[in-house]
Amino acid sequence: MSSQDENGLGAPCGWRSGPDISHHSVFLKETLQLLVENAVFQATDRNNKVVEWVEPEELEEQLDLRLGEEGITHAALLAYLRGVIRYSVKTGHPYFINQLFSSLDVYGLVGQWVTDALNPSVYTYEVAPVFTIMENEVLSNMASIVGYSQHDGLFAPGGSMANMYGMLLARYRRFPEIKRSGVSGLGRLVAFTSVDAHYSNTKSAMTLGLGADNLVLVNVDEEGRMDVDHLKECIARTKQDGALPFLVTATAGTTVLGAYDPLDAIADVCQAEGLWLHADAAWGGGALLSPKHKHKLRGIHRSDSVTWNPHKLLAAPQQCSVFLTRHLGLLTQCNSASAPYLFQKDKFYDTKYDVGDKHLQCGRRADVLKFWTMWKAKGTKGLERHIDHLFEMTKFFTETIRDREGFRLVLEPQCTNVCFWYEPPSLRGKRNHEQYPQLLNNVAPRIKERMVKTGAMMITYQPLHSRPNFFRLVLQNSQVNAEDMKYFANQIEVLGRDL
Amino acid sequence: MSSQDENGLGAPCGWRSGPDISHHSVFLKETLQLLVENAVFQATDRNNKVVEWVEPEELEEQLDLRLGEEGITHAALLAYLRGVIRYSVKTGHPYFINQLFSSLDVYGLVGQWVTDALNPSVYTYEVAPVFTIMENEVLSNMASIVGYSQHDGLFAPGGSMANMYGMLLARYRRFPEIKRSGVSGLGRLVAFTSVDAHYSNTKSAMTLGLGADNLVLVNVDEEGRMDVDHLKECIARTKQDGALPFLVTATAGTTVLGAYDPLDAIADVCQAEGLWLHADAAWGGGALLSPKHKHKLRGIHRSDSVTWNPHKLLAAPQQCSVFLTRHLGLLTQCNSASAPYLFQKDKFYDTKYDVGDKHLQCGRRADVLKFWTMWKAKGTKGLERHIDHLFEMTKFFTETIRDREGFRLVLEPQCTNVCFWYEPPSLRGKRNHEQYPQLLNNVAPRIKERMVKTGAMMITYQPLHSRPNFFRLVLQNSQVNAEDMKYFANQIEVLGRDL
Repeated sequence: MSSQDENGLGAPCGWRSGPDISHHSVFLKETLQLLVENAVFQATDRNNKVVEWVEPEELEEQLDLRLGEEGITHAALLAYLRGVIRYSVKTGHPYFINQLFSSLDVYGLVGQWVTDALNPSVYTYEVAPVFTIMENEVLSNMASIVGYSQHDGLFAPGGSMANMYGMLLARYRRFPEIKRSGVSGLGRLVAFTSVDAHYSNTKSAMTLGLGADNLVLVNVDEEGRMDVDHLKECIARTKQDGALPFLVTATAGTTVLGAYDPLDAIADVCQAEGLWLHADAAWGGGALLSPKHKHKLRGIHRSDSVTWNPHKLLAAPQQCSVFLTRHLGLLTQCNSASAPYLFQKDKFYDTKYDVGDKHLQCGRRADVLKFWTMWKAKGTKGLERHIDHLFEMTKFFTETIRDREGFRLVLEPQCTNVCFWYEPPSLRGKRNHEQYPQLLNNVAPRIKERMVKTGAMMITYQPLHSRPNFFRLVLQNSQVNAEDMKYFANQIEVLGRDL
Repeated sequence: MSSQDENGLGAPCGWRSGPDISHHSVFLKETLQLLVENAVFQATDRNNKVVEWVEPEELEEQLDLRLGEEGITHAALLAYLRGVIRYSVKTGHPYFINQLFSSLDVYGLVGQWVTDALNPSVYTYEVAPVFTIMENEVLSNMASIVGYSQHDGLFAPGGSMANMYGMLLARYRRFPEIKRSGVSGLGRLVAFTSVDAHYSNTKSAMTLGLGADNLVLVNVDEEGRMDVDHLKECIARTKQDGALPFLVTATAGTTVLGAYDPLDAIADVCQAEGLWLHADAAWGGGALLSPKHKHKLRGIHRSDSVTWNPHKLLAAPQQCSVFLTRHLGLLTQCNSASAPYLFQKDKFYDTKYDVGDKHLQCGRRADVLKFWTMWKAKGTKGLERHIDHLFEMTKFFTETIRDREGFRLVLEPQCTNVCFWYEPPSLRGKRNHEQYPQLLNNVAPRIKERMVKTGAMMITYQPLHSRPNFFRLVLQNSQVNAEDMKYFANQIEVLGRDL
């Protein structure tokens, strides 16, 4: 075999793990070029589509992802990766405003790439020295921004897991015997959150053995914020029923409406009732970086624990979710199993740096470097500008559609969610018609289908309580500008005016 | 500002998310070069250290990871990343045999890098079309290798979480009412696993509200395998006590000894008793790829669910953990919350492709592409060769130390774990001395300290039951060769002979 064959793209990949400079350098160079050109620059270029839509069955055929007995060449692998990039949704594209995450932050991405090459697992200082002290640094800064005077914390694989840690700690603090003997003898434990809170609260209640019915869903006001009087009533009723309230989860930035629950008032209730207050700021926590907007989370320092996802409003790459608590040592007390094969006590360094036993995970990816890299690159002031820009654009979009014919706000935005209906001309002036809600309900799905199929943009829609399907614009990508806001409104009009 | 300043490394990073070709291309080019040279090729070169050891406090000073108000320049950021790479443990280095993960597989790494740039969240087909069908493809292939005739499954953030899914499904299947009403009225639920099983079983029991005491730890035999007679006794005693057995977790490759529990015999017990059998093959599952070695997991097709981590024996990058079950639809029945804002039923495509509601996570990283890329590159036969090579090297190392003075095997290896003591000359011939166990116990930690401080290699040690500290070599990196095996033995001798 000639050297050309061994090293070039025509060479078979081979079965060994471990890089070999003569075998891999051409392949690496070519894939990195593909990555930077196609998955970074082209994928975020407004001139390109957000998605090249293909039906599931067709995509299976087009990409042919089937795994075979034999290996393939570097060239063939590169072609597959090109297809993977081509048919993937470009979540970093400025016209992807579909989820509570978006953006392609170059510093975050580079931090992630470095993490991948180092492939650490953050449980002992021994194998992850840099990531261990880096997590401490980032968690300390975030805790200080929350306003905790002392803290403990961890990175969780997503906000749902972080919220589960909150419920777990709340339960353990009240009934520490659960760790050994379980809940079976205890009676009925009850948690409270708003009817607009994230569904992970329900999943946590199911997982931890409370049962979904023992998560009481408190009413919200017209703006989607928890009704504190109703919370009090729910707690009183639960106690009358002989059940055991132990937790209130307040939401700082609800998923759909972006509502901020009144944390201070809820903290008063929790204090009076001796209940744990968990603040789910997964979505809205980023506003804490802005002196202009942090008032939305007033009272968060009084919480017992917080979920805050930098991969949402702060646009860090997925996943970057933080759980913080002001109760020192409680994570370890609640979750430790003291495995002697990993957390040896006869190590030659101070084992307080071995943080793994406070987690439910054993091996754990380092989700910190990507966010640290962004924070270091931009500084805290850069993050502040990012947040302020997002809120400015939210306001700009709101004003753009406020008086535009056919657009109707669901409510005034609190976070960077803008919820609105689009009424095609055929529906205008017919709000009192019997069929109007159903007809309006059909509009958003139809427009969504068209925008995905043309690749023009992606924005989500959903119903909420008695409200028919409405669009929800969400901003995390600070690449967006005023022109983009007009583009979004125009596209919806163009795609929906004949409906 | 000149174009040089704007584009070059001296330019400030800036606060915006979103790549800008004129601003970022020089920085990207430089960091990718650093990555490939320092974190890929140099980090896996036998001529370089596995770790450059620095005490925690000193590392904090050296790296200065503090976050500041102001942003920094591209050049400064690059210098920080250089430091991050320098002081990180090189887990891809062939001399890193310290954990149940290792290697730097170029195809896995490239798959991960592409994933990062695309930054998907795998919950709906709409936002992750390629990753959704790719997960199906990989899970189907793995389920077929396990021997399930039908399957459902998911990627979990680590084996601990995958094991928790096993316990959760087992409980739900037996007591579906738990989803709504919780466990409080049910009596005491009891699960069984071996005393050598992974600690995540204990954490799951604590988290799910069973309590650690209700996870009964079954004895193991001399080889570390579950004692099936003792399992039967434990189940009988639990039933006599009026408690409710519902789950046996067998381990296929225990963490320390690498023991494979007798799955067939345990499946017989579970069948007779009507208990869910979860097979924790997180570590040893990779052996299923080899016709030579898969007999170790005989009976695994009879399990109700399986944990299998390709990031362990198959050397995929962290994290890549799979949970499989042969019960169709049960994951969704158990875990669904049907959030109407994400899993809309009026979508324009077949929503069976929206898999997110079977998970506990909401947003979820795509852990599939890195493994798919490796599998596609090497073919199933390549993975088989990888596994066979690891077992050959395990045998070679075992034979290398078997008759070597001062080395003593703890037991014959079953997986790629080789557990052994090293007796320095000062201890030889003194096994009957009263202080021998304590003195031997001190040896491994001292040698470990020296190898970390010289950066020569990394191998872990631990005590187990009454056995004093012993070394555990674990192989996942198929880059290792016979010379490396001799190197490991030689290094331990060099570092320990004066103790």
